[in-house]
Amino acid sequence: MYHNILENIRIVMIQTSHPGNIGSAARAMKVMGLSELYLVKPKSFPDDQAVAMSSNAADILNNAHVVDTLQEAIADCQLVVGSSARHERSLKWDILDSRSCGELVAKQAKASKVAILFGRESSGLSNEELALCRHLVHIPTNPDYSSLNVASAVQILGYECRIASLKNEGLEENHADNANADPDDAWVTAKESEGYFEHLQSILIELDFLDPDNPRYLMPRLRRLYSRSGITRSELNILRGMLTAIQKRK
Amino acid sequence: MYHNILENIRIVMIQTSHPGNIGSAARAMKVMGLSELYLVKPKSFPDDQAVAMSSNAADILNNAHVVDTLQEAIADCQLVVGSSARHERSLKWDILDSRSCGELVAKQAKASKVAILFGRESSGLSNEELALCRHLVHIPTNPDYSSLNVASAVQILGYECRIASLKNEGLEENHADNANADPDDAWVTAKESEGYFEHLQSILIELDFLDPDNPRYLMPRLRRLYSRSGITRSELNILRGMLTAIQKRK
Repeated sequence: MYHNILENIRIVMIQTSHPGNIGSAARAMKVMGLSELYLVKPKSFPDDQAVAMSSNAADILNNAHVVDTLQEAIADCQLVVGSSARHERSLKWDILDSRSCGELVAKQAKASKVAILFGRESSGLSNEELALCRHLVHIPTNPDYSSLNVASAVQILGYECRIASLKNEGLEENHADNANADPDDAWVTAKESEGYFEHLQSILIELDFLDPDNPRYLMPRLRRLYSRSGITRSELNILRGMLTAIQKRK
Repeated sequence: MYHNILENIRIVMIQTSHPGNIGSAARAMKVMGLSELYLVKPKSFPDDQAVAMSSNAADILNNAHVVDTLQEAIADCQLVVGSSARHERSLKWDILDSRSCGELVAKQAKASKVAILFGRESSGLSNEELALCRHLVHIPTNPDYSSLNVASAVQILGYECRIASLKNEGLEENHADNANADPDDAWVTAKESEGYFEHLQSILIELDFLDPDNPRYLMPRLRRLYSRSGITRSELNILRGMLTAIQKRK
């Protein structure tokens, strides 16, 4: 179950100044299926602003663990990844981009707890905190404006973790052809659409729009247009109704 | 240059109720390198709350276009994608996941304007608005809690567009995918297809096939059909030629 992967992914926010950001992060987590939030020395928590910003993710806030040190927050984790707003060029870390991070985290979280750290709004993670990370992750933002709100960073990394988890479990949501709730929305068969094209062609000939001796690419082009969209039952009824209306008027 | 790709991607927010969401969306856009914001009938704009939430992305707000109709916002766009919070199971749209959306949008935006639509906080996009979209995009959120804030949705789709643009930039030397090889194969703009729908509607009324006093869902259904496929220049020529041929015969 991919739910277990997501349950093993812990978000750790360090010395967050604005309680509203904690609330927004909780909402961002829940919408991606994450639930475990650790807060290291938050400036104000619990706080009404956090609740207000959490929308209906108050359960994440209620279950949040408030701790005094980062060490406590990550004690049982086998992989710790620190998010970094800057390119830490001078540091000899393995810096992951956000996508690779999601993939690595989801893989590791199959078997053990993983923590992703988010630093202070103003100054990020300290060197001491960075030293506890196996990897850093950098979201490739606009180099001219990299002001990513901490809750937005949680949103994006949570999203990447979710996508990678779904892939890992082969449970990717399939939006392709669902069994048809409404028969009017069912695709018509190839035979039925063929019947439509024949009807259309005969009318285009009657209208002197299509010259049977020099058809050019008219019908192939129209076929391609409708093949791209596909035709539902209700749409075919309309299309054929239009042809009949044209014929009546001659 | 991928910068040009991002410049061709337009964010359209429809009847946004909370100006703070517009500001947060502007920040989310800028951090991903997007700059073009259209606002269709925002409840309050300009607004101090928008500025407050935009952090230093006020330039996006200052340059935002405020318009009365969605048609104006997308008139010059060759691809229109609508974001959808729900699984539109019964509708026969091509529903993209967020990643595929970023890839498609970045590819198309190499050569032409693309719009991504974000509906109302409460109720999303109306059926009429959906009918103007070639694709819908769904962010695969937690099915038990899919309450994604509109600015967060902008953040995630903007992120996917950016990542895909960066990739495309890396592939710039590969000209295999040139969207503009043949101008006949280029997509027509929303304004041009709108002209077609108006022409079509007038003829359906003349044919007594469409009753203006009881139009039912005829035009929205036809719009949806063609929005799904997209219309190329050569196809539009055929479709309009057919209408002219019908008119001549009366």
